[in-house]
Amino acid sequence: MRAVDIIRKKRDGHTLSGDEIKYLVNGYCQETIPDYQVSSFLMSVYYQGLSPIETADLTRAMIDSGSTLDFSQFDGVKVDKHSTGGVGDKVSLVAAPVVASLGGFVPMMSGRGLGHTGGTLDKLESIPGFTVQLQRSDMDRIMDGCGYIMMGQTEDMVPADKRMYALRDVTATVESISLITASILSKKFAEGTEGLVMDLKCGTGAFMKNIEQSRSLGNSLLQTGRELGLDVRIVVTDMNRPLGTRIGNLNEVLEALEALQGYMVDDFKEVTLEITANMLVQAGIVPTVSDGIVAAEKSLQDGSAFKAFCRNVELQGGDLTYTDVSKIKKELAKTEHETIIVAKQKGWISGLDAYKTGQAAMLLGAGRATVTDTIDYLCGIEVLGGFGTTVEKGEPVLKLTYNRDDNLEMAVTLCNDAIQVSDSPIKVGSSILETID
Amino acid sequence: MRAVDIIRKKRDGHTLSGDEIKYLVNGYCQETIPDYQVSSFLMSVYYQGLSPIETADLTRAMIDSGSTLDFSQFDGVKVDKHSTGGVGDKVSLVAAPVVASLGGFVPMMSGRGLGHTGGTLDKLESIPGFTVQLQRSDMDRIMDGCGYIMMGQTEDMVPADKRMYALRDVTATVESISLITASILSKKFAEGTEGLVMDLKCGTGAFMKNIEQSRSLGNSLLQTGRELGLDVRIVVTDMNRPLGTRIGNLNEVLEALEALQGYMVDDFKEVTLEITANMLVQAGIVPTVSDGIVAAEKSLQDGSAFKAFCRNVELQGGDLTYTDVSKIKKELAKTEHETIIVAKQKGWISGLDAYKTGQAAMLLGAGRATVTDTIDYLCGIEVLGGFGTTVEKGEPVLKLTYNRDDNLEMAVTLCNDAIQVSDSPIKVGSSILETID
Repeated sequence: MRAVDIIRKKRDGHTLSGDEIKYLVNGYCQETIPDYQVSSFLMSVYYQGLSPIETADLTRAMIDSGSTLDFSQFDGVKVDKHSTGGVGDKVSLVAAPVVASLGGFVPMMSGRGLGHTGGTLDKLESIPGFTVQLQRSDMDRIMDGCGYIMMGQTEDMVPADKRMYALRDVTATVESISLITASILSKKFAEGTEGLVMDLKCGTGAFMKNIEQSRSLGNSLLQTGRELGLDVRIVVTDMNRPLGTRIGNLNEVLEALEALQGYMVDDFKEVTLEITANMLVQAGIVPTVSDGIVAAEKSLQDGSAFKAFCRNVELQGGDLTYTDVSKIKKELAKTEHETIIVAKQKGWISGLDAYKTGQAAMLLGAGRATVTDTIDYLCGIEVLGGFGTTVEKGEPVLKLTYNRDDNLEMAVTLCNDAIQVSDSPIKVGSSILETID
Repeated sequence: MRAVDIIRKKRDGHTLSGDEIKYLVNGYCQETIPDYQVSSFLMSVYYQGLSPIETADLTRAMIDSGSTLDFSQFDGVKVDKHSTGGVGDKVSLVAAPVVASLGGFVPMMSGRGLGHTGGTLDKLESIPGFTVQLQRSDMDRIMDGCGYIMMGQTEDMVPADKRMYALRDVTATVESISLITASILSKKFAEGTEGLVMDLKCGTGAFMKNIEQSRSLGNSLLQTGRELGLDVRIVVTDMNRPLGTRIGNLNEVLEALEALQGYMVDDFKEVTLEITANMLVQAGIVPTVSDGIVAAEKSLQDGSAFKAFCRNVELQGGDLTYTDVSKIKKELAKTEHETIIVAKQKGWISGLDAYKTGQAAMLLGAGRATVTDTIDYLCGIEVLGGFGTTVEKGEPVLKLTYNRDDNLEMAVTLCNDAIQVSDSPIKVGSSILETID
């Protein structure tokens, strides 16, 4: 077998065998196949795509490139959720404790924020002491103690994905449905989950800008999951505006905490319940999504989910005083500066661009422009005037709180640009754009 | 400027600026842009192609990556020909001395054989002492002495093409019309020629298997040449069967020598005269191709071309006794073995597959399977029964002469497979399939 023949075969639109895909991935990991052959292969995949069977073979080869986790000692179907990345998306912080509180097991491996999107690990680390880099023995202890684990990817897991993603990033081959599918599924299924609910963000603040792109990624994930014998469910949600009312790390923990105590704004609630309910169905805890929604709401209202959250914070080393809303509010009040962005005209708020607000939050220190940037956990943006509500000219719409102001001008411009006010009332549609199954 | 943005731009089918192309080529040569970015760029070019302007920019950047030759001290338009590679193609050995004998200047930079195709440099080196690796001062002396130079590419010429070709070879990006165009034209125009006649071989033994492929390459070469302000003429010739009657290095020198003394079989004659006549028009020696054919035939008949050939052999250090047909025949007779391939049935020879005979000659030692293989100059294949002629069952069609017989069985099988005999007479068409201008 020769790498060049495999590249040519894919280049010409033929279907690769599992052995050919395995040969390529293994060779790449063992450095017998050089970067320059893999990058031209990736570009040919960009154009020709991979079938669900090929994508499953690629996913499997990537999983097999490193170590995997196994939580089979915990009795029940392990489930997880994954979002393709958005602005203000703190669903994971709520979904995991809800599922765990209802008897499910969630081994959740998450990522960090980059660019305008945040990352679950960063949000959790805004709780002092919270540790996401865990040893194997810690994982079992945490799962046993609270039913879910919030963890970062360990060094030895899916190394093929790590290397391939870095290569894709510099060779303009990130935007391939097949490669995105294999990258997501390999990371998720290496962590030992059996069910996966995908929250496909769609809109200006998402990787997928329109519903067609979301549908093709959704179908690819679904079909590839099927080939792998894994239960994948797809929920496409709106990311034209930030989810909920807060952007920024500790700010989002605050909104999640309020949710765990029963209070959530509509869009955040709708998305969280839909995702959580699907996880509960996958875990075999409820028979239908509607049952799942009822069960999840109950867990949020009666404090069971909050209890699981607190137990998790404790088990992962976090400062328990940060499970108190007033404590977090006091911490957040320590930011040095505040800037209010107001409506330029009277009317109905018809746009709160997710990309622009996400980018602004990043510029204030809530995110990273490059992977080596450090994060200011306290800074963030609060949405004061909700989407679809009325505003007067000069009425506050966004509140920016921050410590560093070196990029303030740009952040303010972005926030001003993000706000659209309409002369006539607008219809606020559902945040669940589609479910694919 | 970032390489990844240039790759993405081409990936998405946009047109690159001259600066972007130059940035990429220069960065690659200076090793600030790594192989893996260039290979994914090349794959995107494979799919999206380059416009004639982009191809011209790429060609220019590749020429500028190294040193160039300049023969402007010789008064007249410098012309050259280039073939895309075939079997039994000894046209260069005849065309150059004909043009030179009529007052033209030909700075001919050629290549070596690989796979089933032969190379002009190897053929010339079958004349003991003949040197193709020349110093700059030698070149001027040789051009001055006989009007043409037969040379190999020097180390410092078009290094971008050398590196890029090696990369294309292992990343399945050889078969791109735009990249082939830039590769050919950069090498040719770096040698200081102003006119170029392209012999686009078309058929089983050629890189281009059908007329459509030849046309697209022809048009690309023509349009890119125009963008570069260079005179390119395109002749598409048949390479479904070997050209002439002899394959193998010294064997082909013998056939060229016979041609220079006025004797050529039809197909070889037709192609050589067409190519040569076009070169003569480009050089401004004759006004039309028909005039060029008359002039070329005269030069072959009256011994002027032969005289130029002998002078060139002498100037490039070759053994002058090898300009004697009987001497070469005596040398060729020294091969240890001979195998005759006969017709399997009575009829008309309707096929002599160029790829298979070329492959067989290579296996006997006339060519290289890989670049490091050494060549046996004496071995070869002679076509005894010409295309379209009648044969009896058992009548000799091909004569194989060779010293090494380790691959004999495969070579014999290929030769047997190469021969097709028809029950009815076949029409022998022109070897000139098309001229493009």
